[in-house]
Amino acid sequence: MQDVKALLFDVFGTVVDWRGGVAREAAPFLAAHGLGQVDPAAFADAWRRRYQPAMEAVRSGRRPYTRLDVLHRENLEAVLRDHGLDPATVPEAELAALNLAWHRLDPWPDSVPGLTRLKRVFVIAPLSNGNIVLMLDMAKRAGIPWDAILGAEVARAYKPTPEAYLRTAEVLALAPAQCCLVAAHNGDLKAARACGFRTAFVARPTEHGPGQRSDLHAEEAWDVVATDFEDLATRLGV
Amino acid sequence: MQDVKALLFDVFGTVVDWRGGVAREAAPFLAAHGLGQVDPAAFADAWRRRYQPAMEAVRSGRRPYTRLDVLHRENLEAVLRDHGLDPATVPEAELAALNLAWHRLDPWPDSVPGLTRLKRVFVIAPLSNGNIVLMLDMAKRAGIPWDAILGAEVARAYKPTPEAYLRTAEVLALAPAQCCLVAAHNGDLKAARACGFRTAFVARPTEHGPGQRSDLHAEEAWDVVATDFEDLATRLGV
Repeated sequence: MQDVKALLFDVFGTVVDWRGGVAREAAPFLAAHGLGQVDPAAFADAWRRRYQPAMEAVRSGRRPYTRLDVLHRENLEAVLRDHGLDPATVPEAELAALNLAWHRLDPWPDSVPGLTRLKRVFVIAPLSNGNIVLMLDMAKRAGIPWDAILGAEVARAYKPTPEAYLRTAEVLALAPAQCCLVAAHNGDLKAARACGFRTAFVARPTEHGPGQRSDLHAEEAWDVVATDFEDLATRLGV
Repeated sequence: MQDVKALLFDVFGTVVDWRGGVAREAAPFLAAHGLGQVDPAAFADAWRRRYQPAMEAVRSGRRPYTRLDVLHRENLEAVLRDHGLDPATVPEAELAALNLAWHRLDPWPDSVPGLTRLKRVFVIAPLSNGNIVLMLDMAKRAGIPWDAILGAEVARAYKPTPEAYLRTAEVLALAPAQCCLVAAHNGDLKAARACGFRTAFVARPTEHGPGQRSDLHAEEAWDVVATDFEDLATRLGV
């Protein structure tokens, strides 16, 4: 890790609690539209289940690069239909506001203090599939002190496509081995490692709620394994 | 200006003193290579004179998008040859270090205090022809509190090409009229206004040294005319 200059962060799940934040924002919407019996956290899960398939259309080349805000909106309309609500009957401003739930996610309690420490020594930036203004709004609201906003929109490629990692290193004028991906997801780290990145795993055992069964532990010998971002800073000597 | 959500900043000359910074970094290099008689500020001017022609090759389509660090390096080699120094005789590490002079420019004294105030109310980001890592290194060294780093590399277009402004607004999910360019250069503001941006002029009367004759005054009725970034913040009610 001594050559690492930049820490690049997965964001949804790793830096912020997407499930809790989306559920919080969805709850009043669901209640107002006759879906008060729907569990807002289950609604967040259903919305999120459409995330990977939507990006896969771009990764496979079936669709040109389309920013995540647009995919989220399409997925929102689909999940509302799945719940028996025709999105055409909902005022546009309400759909637009709910879609921005992803811009208003809260960081895990250790995220901002840990990033603030890490920023003293490393370049810190998101390497998320979230688009630039999504990351910007989230950071501004929550005080996340990124040095720059990188990721899918700058690379014009969605993780885990190799270009998402390699173009991020290139933009930073760094070799892949000078970059470390920090993520709560073994699959993301595996793809980054295949590109030559260093890897740091931080478990987020409640990302998917109390019954989470995936990504509870490091599944490979990642370069660093930390319990949270403060522990990551300590392990990196910051 | 009441609809403006984002302030986008020209950087070289507007936020930072490129001439003084490049001269400071060039002075020991020139002395070490038998060019101690060359005025470092004049050397900075000579290097900068190759800036617009180099970008014009990209703007005209004769060359694909090439980041400014690469153009700066080509221009450095050319200007050394103009001064009778063959760059092939200079160690690579010294050329690379001098090229990074542009990453180590100092802000004008009012820049960081003004930006810190403006950030409370507006999204603030560079809309510079400088590439991402150049802006990032500069901001990290000088404490410039950007919300994101936008500009030519994100837009894949050099100002004053319309795409440089329009794609920046699109990335921010804003209409051009919700964006205001802040610049010390009337030409940049004219191009931004033609794209529908709001405009703010801040005079930087010593950007080109004590004998500066261009851009001393607002040449059109820009939406805001301020004496410095603190004055800009005050005029915008921050």
